[in-house]
Amino acid sequence: MSPYVPGEQPQGGGWVKLNTNENPYPPSLRALEAVRVALVNDGAALRLYPSPDSAPLREAAGRFHGFDAAHVVAGNGSDDILNLLIRAYAGPGRPIGMLNPSYSLYPVLAAAQHAEVVKVEVTDALGVDVDAVAKCGAAVFFLTNPNAPLGVAFGTEVVRSLAKAFPGLLVVDEAYAAFADADCVALVSEFPNVVVTRTLSKAHALAGLRVGYALCPPLVAEVLHRVRDSYNVDRLAQVAAAAALDDREWLDVTVAQVRATRDRLAAALRKLGWQVNPAAGNFVLAAPVSTKRAASVETAAHCFEFLRARKILVRRFPNHRLTEKSLRISVGTEQETDVFLQAVAAWMEG
Amino acid sequence: MSPYVPGEQPQGGGWVKLNTNENPYPPSLRALEAVRVALVNDGAALRLYPSPDSAPLREAAGRFHGFDAAHVVAGNGSDDILNLLIRAYAGPGRPIGMLNPSYSLYPVLAAAQHAEVVKVEVTDALGVDVDAVAKCGAAVFFLTNPNAPLGVAFGTEVVRSLAKAFPGLLVVDEAYAAFADADCVALVSEFPNVVVTRTLSKAHALAGLRVGYALCPPLVAEVLHRVRDSYNVDRLAQVAAAAALDDREWLDVTVAQVRATRDRLAAALRKLGWQVNPAAGNFVLAAPVSTKRAASVETAAHCFEFLRARKILVRRFPNHRLTEKSLRISVGTEQETDVFLQAVAAWMEG
Repeated sequence: MSPYVPGEQPQGGGWVKLNTNENPYPPSLRALEAVRVALVNDGAALRLYPSPDSAPLREAAGRFHGFDAAHVVAGNGSDDILNLLIRAYAGPGRPIGMLNPSYSLYPVLAAAQHAEVVKVEVTDALGVDVDAVAKCGAAVFFLTNPNAPLGVAFGTEVVRSLAKAFPGLLVVDEAYAAFADADCVALVSEFPNVVVTRTLSKAHALAGLRVGYALCPPLVAEVLHRVRDSYNVDRLAQVAAAAALDDREWLDVTVAQVRATRDRLAAALRKLGWQVNPAAGNFVLAAPVSTKRAASVETAAHCFEFLRARKILVRRFPNHRLTEKSLRISVGTEQETDVFLQAVAAWMEG
Repeated sequence: MSPYVPGEQPQGGGWVKLNTNENPYPPSLRALEAVRVALVNDGAALRLYPSPDSAPLREAAGRFHGFDAAHVVAGNGSDDILNLLIRAYAGPGRPIGMLNPSYSLYPVLAAAQHAEVVKVEVTDALGVDVDAVAKCGAAVFFLTNPNAPLGVAFGTEVVRSLAKAFPGLLVVDEAYAAFADADCVALVSEFPNVVVTRTLSKAHALAGLRVGYALCPPLVAEVLHRVRDSYNVDRLAQVAAAAALDDREWLDVTVAQVRATRDRLAAALRKLGWQVNPAAGNFVLAAPVSTKRAASVETAAHCFEFLRARKILVRRFPNHRLTEKSLRISVGTEQETDVFLQAVAAWMEG
């Protein structure tokens, strides 16, 4: 069994870190204030177990999406939620399905449950073959939407078709949906077999606190509550996440800024002749080219190393035909993006 | 599949909460300071993922016990570690073993992995039947030591005999060991099949932050790293736990105080004629009696409700012959203990 390999987390400063899709901006000050309040009286509250079912956090997530808290299950990052879904719904004889490429954690979690993995290829037009998903035989299918690492979003109508056609549980992994034009949250009310997973790690800039949640039919929520750890989200993470969800203004401003920078980055790379995927998340997948080098695995590796030598970290996905010639560049601050684009200009001249 | 039922976590104030074995004292101020330092610059660090393998925390745990960090795996509470152990070492045809009574979470975790559970009864003398454990056929055996809810500790020599005689993986769950006279940490170096699990929730007063770890042979550590979530311990929990482990003075003073209060509580209840187990953890298991009532399930329930009506929460374990007549009372502050003992005096007169 191979472990999931997360992106590099360099120690020490000086890196322009565009490799793990973190938000370039600090989180909501309301989240910070909530943590500070939870630490009053010399942190006396830390001695007590947190709310076992993350009740106030689930209420906040419910308010955010217009759901009752009974539809929400909170986890130690959305990875915890994905894990719970696989533990509850997959196993020997109950395969998981996933798009290929998508999040490489799913097969790792499936292996731990001795569940087979059925991969449905993303089409060359970067779309979903609804028929192939419908017939794939999986007990639970993970649709990463927007897709990572490709960056494209699949429209709500496509996902609705999938929900109708796929006989198992359809999990729409919306880690990046806050940066897209639309999401599939409404489908959770429409279909008994649709779950949407969300994370506070990207749009809410709380990757350090590990909070995610599922929006799901109450029956699915009951099942997930049975398999999760009793106290799976800690006290400070609960209060920070709840406060962050309640700070809509911060989210709107920050997401608008990240989207603007993303679109500027994508346009700049297109202008240089790079092959750039439509980008719906907080990252851009793009295949480097220069006057001397065509798009290829070697060109991507060369550019990656050139950037790395300048302490700019991006990420490569050399294991799939749709990603092997590309770099995935997380959207940084305006300044980080300028530093990146200057380094790219130097590479193209080199 | 039945979920684990954690102790009640009442909302609102005014409760004397002696039901979930939390530390009655606030955590080390060094832990608090570490959290504050991690929040500088408006919490900017929270936007970044934490150390994926909790490296600084594992170093601190290594320093604490005199191990190399390669022997340490950190988890989101020791519940996470127990879960990982069962996922990695149990399953269909690979049963888990446990003492009965002990921690009721083990069977819940085993059920999620479709693993059978073999229960070895604690003897009437509150000891371990080494031969029965050795022959129980489990792939992994959980020895809660000190035992909860019984309170007794099993000596290191008994555990050493078990490690020799039991052919599978022996997990010594030392959630309460910091309050006991001895622990089994040294056995991890002596035997290839011994794992010790620890939590920061009890002795270190950080239940709210969900941190635990395993001390294990490096080969076992490698296996656990493969099945755990990539970022299973959040940033604030990591720094707080590392600082708490480094604050030996706080631990020594606090544990000495809890032990003194525990021994006073046990002595007071014995003086009232209650049947009190030897207590090695931060709680006392005792069967209430009064001049009017003999020790019985009903007497325990009556006393429990009497206390609850006075907003004093303790815990009952009505499902085992060795616990059904008893209450488990967490060790509180001196003042909480006085309030509890006064209520007990009122119950005995009632």
